[in-house]
Amino acid sequence: MGVIRLGYVHLRVTDLDSSTEHYRNTLGMDAVAEEDGRLYLKSWDEHDHHSVVLEEGGVGLVKLGYKVATPEDLDEFEHRATVFGARVQRMSKGDNVGVGDGLRITLPSEHTLELYNDVEYLGNATGSWNPDPWPREGLRGIGVPRLDHTLITTADPILLERFFSEVLGFRAAERLVGGPDNDDLVGSWMFCGEQPHDIAFVKGEQGKLHHFAYHVDDWTSLLRAGDIFSMRDVPIDFGPARHGITRGETLYFFDPAGNRNEIFAGGYRTGPDFRTITWTMDKAAQGINYTHRELDPDFLNVVT
Amino acid sequence: MGVIRLGYVHLRVTDLDSSTEHYRNTLGMDAVAEEDGRLYLKSWDEHDHHSVVLEEGGVGLVKLGYKVATPEDLDEFEHRATVFGARVQRMSKGDNVGVGDGLRITLPSEHTLELYNDVEYLGNATGSWNPDPWPREGLRGIGVPRLDHTLITTADPILLERFFSEVLGFRAAERLVGGPDNDDLVGSWMFCGEQPHDIAFVKGEQGKLHHFAYHVDDWTSLLRAGDIFSMRDVPIDFGPARHGITRGETLYFFDPAGNRNEIFAGGYRTGPDFRTITWTMDKAAQGINYTHRELDPDFLNVVT
Amino acid sequence: MGVIRLGYVHLRVTDLDSSTEHYRNTLGMDAVAEEDGRLYLKSWDEHDHHSVVLEEGGVGLVKLGYKVATPEDLDEFEHRATVFGARVQRMSKGDNVGVGDGLRITLPSEHTLELYNDVEYLGNATGSWNPDPWPREGLRGIGVPRLDHTLITTADPILLERFFSEVLGFRAAERLVGGPDNDDLVGSWMFCGEQPHDIAFVKGEQGKLHHFAYHVDDWTSLLRAGDIFSMRDVPIDFGPARHGITRGETLYFFDPAGNRNEIFAGGYRTGPDFRTITWTMDKAAQGINYTHRELDPDFLNVVT
Amino acid sequence: MGVIRLGYVHLRVTDLDSSTEHYRNTLGMDAVAEEDGRLYLKSWDEHDHHSVVLEEGGVGLVKLGYKVATPEDLDEFEHRATVFGARVQRMSKGDNVGVGDGLRITLPSEHTLELYNDVEYLGNATGSWNPDPWPREGLRGIGVPRLDHTLITTADPILLERFFSEVLGFRAAERLVGGPDNDDLVGSWMFCGEQPHDIAFVKGEQGKLHHFAYHVDDWTSLLRAGDIFSMRDVPIDFGPARHGITRGETLYFFDPAGNRNEIFAGGYRTGPDFRTITWTMDKAAQGINYTHRELDPDFLNVVT
Repeated sequence: MGVIRLGYVHLRVTDLDSSTEHYRNTLGMDAVAEEDGRLYLKSWDEHDHHSVVLEEGGVGLVKLGYKVATPEDLDEFEHRATVFGARVQRMSKGDNVGVGDGLRITLPSEHTLELYNDVEYLGNATGSWNPDPWPREGLRGIGVPRLDHTLITTADPILLERFFSEVLGFRAAERLVGGPDNDDLVGSWMFCGEQPHDIAFVKGEQGKLHHFAYHVDDWTSLLRAGDIFSMRDVPIDFGPARHGITRGETLYFFDPAGNRNEIFAGGYRTGPDFRTITWTMDKAAQGINYTHRELDPDFLNVVT
Repeated sequence: MGVIRLGYVHLRVTDLDSSTEHYRNTLGMDAVAEEDGRLYLKSWDEHDHHSVVLEEGGVGLVKLGYKVATPEDLDEFEHRATVFGARVQRMSKGDNVGVGDGLRITLPSEHTLELYNDVEYLGNATGSWNPDPWPREGLRGIGVPRLDHTLITTADPILLERFFSEVLGFRAAERLVGGPDNDDLVGSWMFCGEQPHDIAFVKGEQGKLHHFAYHVDDWTSLLRAGDIFSMRDVPIDFGPARHGITRGETLYFFDPAGNRNEIFAGGYRTGPDFRTITWTMDKAAQGINYTHRELDPDFLNVVT
Repeated sequence: MGVIRLGYVHLRVTDLDSSTEHYRNTLGMDAVAEEDGRLYLKSWDEHDHHSVVLEEGGVGLVKLGYKVATPEDLDEFEHRATVFGARVQRMSKGDNVGVGDGLRITLPSEHTLELYNDVEYLGNATGSWNPDPWPREGLRGIGVPRLDHTLITTADPILLERFFSEVLGFRAAERLVGGPDNDDLVGSWMFCGEQPHDIAFVKGEQGKLHHFAYHVDDWTSLLRAGDIFSMRDVPIDFGPARHGITRGETLYFFDPAGNRNEIFAGGYRTGPDFRTITWTMDKAAQGINYTHRELDPDFLNVVT
Repeated sequence: MGVIRLGYVHLRVTDLDSSTEHYRNTLGMDAVAEEDGRLYLKSWDEHDHHSVVLEEGGVGLVKLGYKVATPEDLDEFEHRATVFGARVQRMSKGDNVGVGDGLRITLPSEHTLELYNDVEYLGNATGSWNPDPWPREGLRGIGVPRLDHTLITTADPILLERFFSEVLGFRAAERLVGGPDNDDLVGSWMFCGEQPHDIAFVKGEQGKLHHFAYHVDDWTSLLRAGDIFSMRDVPIDFGPARHGITRGETLYFFDPAGNRNEIFAGGYRTGPDFRTITWTMDKAAQGINYTHRELDPDFLNVVT
């Protein structure tokens, strides 16, 4: 069946307290566990144990977790990743609070990717019996409903795209290409289900995080989020704006450690028959920031 | 790989001209072919040949087409449907303009369901090269981007749910149950991908259509659509309102022949690990019309 | 200078506790005073002492308060109202908590209208020094920002329109006319500033309240309000929908006593040079409910 | 009665053809007259003859027109302006196409301000008889409904504020102050009716235009406008964003001559009893761009 979604982002933050304030009270996630100096958080419309892990010390990604549909997928992915030449380990129940046995793969981009199927089910905040559309007890801050995707950097986008395609069955919804013949892959936005992207990567330093994103309802959510960021002194990178790539609506900002977050709305429906869209470098700025058609150099250069 | 989406709805309409006006100029679909008195239409963000077929004479469904991911799926589904005891035929390239070989199944509900993988690719209106987020040349009327789902009626919801689950691999996102022990299935909302529903059915007359739905961007689209319906004398059934079931935002209306249409926005992300939500009959009105918590009897009784 | 706005609505409610729950926790008003069994409430973006007064016992209007620009206006309006033949009294500081001397007029429609200039200033919730756009400490329920207008019923709309025009300097933004020659005034929507209406009235029983309305930000506010009404069992009359008359977006509902409330967004800018729009009875339903073009008889008949 | 609104902006543009394309097809205004090389344009929801005049040659303001409520206001304003020490002339019917006799004042800021009451009435695009909420024949581009306000620069904000207050009866909704004792006026946002501002000015070069603004429906209009600007290569200055000052939602951009335009939504209701809000220089960036809390130097420096 394959990979079903980005399950968790495990992050380093310089100061756990200020980042806890950010993820809990500004974004509105709930703390579900704290163990060994790691804080486990969950958004209100997520069902599994957690989607963000904060670990004090430094910045950037510790690892990404993607959930797979069946335990058998793990065997198949282990086999394929090994054939591909990636470093693969089994991970054990308890390596992550609430998560069972799984697979730990070192991507060609040097990021650590964990695949798992077994994870503790907590259910979302509205329940499964005559549910309200959102929690009637209210939400804190932005009240992000769920994690959506991540964008990482890699020295070799072609190799990483091959990995996600051949090993994990992802497809490219959109690709940014450069070079004189438009055959140099600069970035790829790949999906495993029906969204425009579940993982994306652009050419850059190995092992770095550009951002990870939460899905929010709509464009109006971005205005309100921007207000909250202003009230709470959260630095904004860019947005609210339209993406050309994915057609979504976006607002980028930073956690107190400097890790870039995004809230993202909209997009289109993909699927196994979706034909890849191509962006060329002369339109790259429009592809990323369709509204403004220009990018601050920091947007390209700041990664953690 | 399985079923990927509702591909087309083939409808009877009493008068082809007035319904063409409705689907083309009010909803904004494009006519892509006309043959043997049938009009084939496509929405601007759809890629395959057509998604609606209008045939003059009567009202209601001729058949539904669902696209499958691979040609091999057709063999598998033929086998499973036969084992289930359904009537199955092969259909041939040319039975439907633009559609290749496939399978024609008579559902336990007496609806005709066509499965196909081969269909002519036309591409959407924004193209696959540095695309705009919507067609800069403008849209007619509402400018619906794509078909979303359909809701049909059946004498035996449990049997039909079993068919969609066991034969076609759908899962129930939400179920409406009645009876003293909440074990009588009144309706089921089932998905094949990541939406809340790709097909739904409620207890009722065999072989009937309750409605089919287009996906639109957001709640604001429903206000503007309601304005256009008022300008163009399109009868509204109910909405704009919130659905409890699916959490979406909805507006129901009728085509000139009396077939019910819906425009639908929002909803949540499902997937293979989604746990079914249950609604009980005491909350049924809230489940369907969360905002108003009451249903006009016609909403339940009028089908075509 | 003239009348500047609807300042307060003084209402009868059958049970003070349940209505307090409605106006405080569902609508989000703040209680500012309680005296002699009357509860005084204020919305977060209002500056004066109160905008709603609840008094236990019965239903319907006790009186309406409209604020005038200067104390001298009171003399002028007293003179004009007397010349018009209306019953006029002086009211005294303390007749209403927080309100100074003023004028009490019995309208030709038998409603009591109070005019005042002197009222205690409390300021809004965001203050007047580097204010946030909305209260960062959050809002309860819908969080209505301010009162907007009221609609009352009268046996003689022409007479009441003359009163508001000749005595108080209002103008008709829109009029609904009937009769064979379209010369029978059925309703009038009148403004004193730049909104589409500050008072409106339709033909009906003398002295009754059809509804009073709060202004909210936008169409999205109506969806969220509808959700809250569903969670809190507040009966909805109609909407979310577009008004033809005023072009606004509307949602009507009832307080626990049966007094009709509205939340209203949008509309256009009027002014002293605005030319009156006319609606005819054949389009009356569209005028009131542009989206659905039909009215429930209760919308016309239920007044308090 | 006083000033009722900004009636027209008369602009210089370097090239009439490209600016005509901008104001007609991107913004969606209608050309109503062309005479002596000047193009007169009107937005769809405006009633008077025109609201923008384009004149080829250079950039910046030729003059601003504000409409007054009665012919007698002109005499009163002439008297008061003369007493104030401003240069005042009578202007004649025909000086501006469609506009009657009036007053031409040289503001202390060296801008030319025309006051008039007599102007040809054309009516808006939806008419005054059972009108639709927007033109059913559709709109071009953004389809701006109406002009809203202008922001100009002056060497002496205190003097200009005194002029607008003492001569024209405007009030300050919000003021930006600096200096060690917060007694140096940097900018003032003044209204004549019920909006947050009809004119605004900040300290800067005499006689210059910072921007003029159109009112649009809502935040969603700004997303769509940004898309259209991207499709049509219109340079954006900043936004979509929230204003702290006025609480509105904003998007700034440039016409082909380099004159800054804004589309503006939201805001609050003022009136004669509104108490001025104060912003201090340490919060100035938040006051102007509440979302991002930083200003590009060009936003402050580029005027025409």
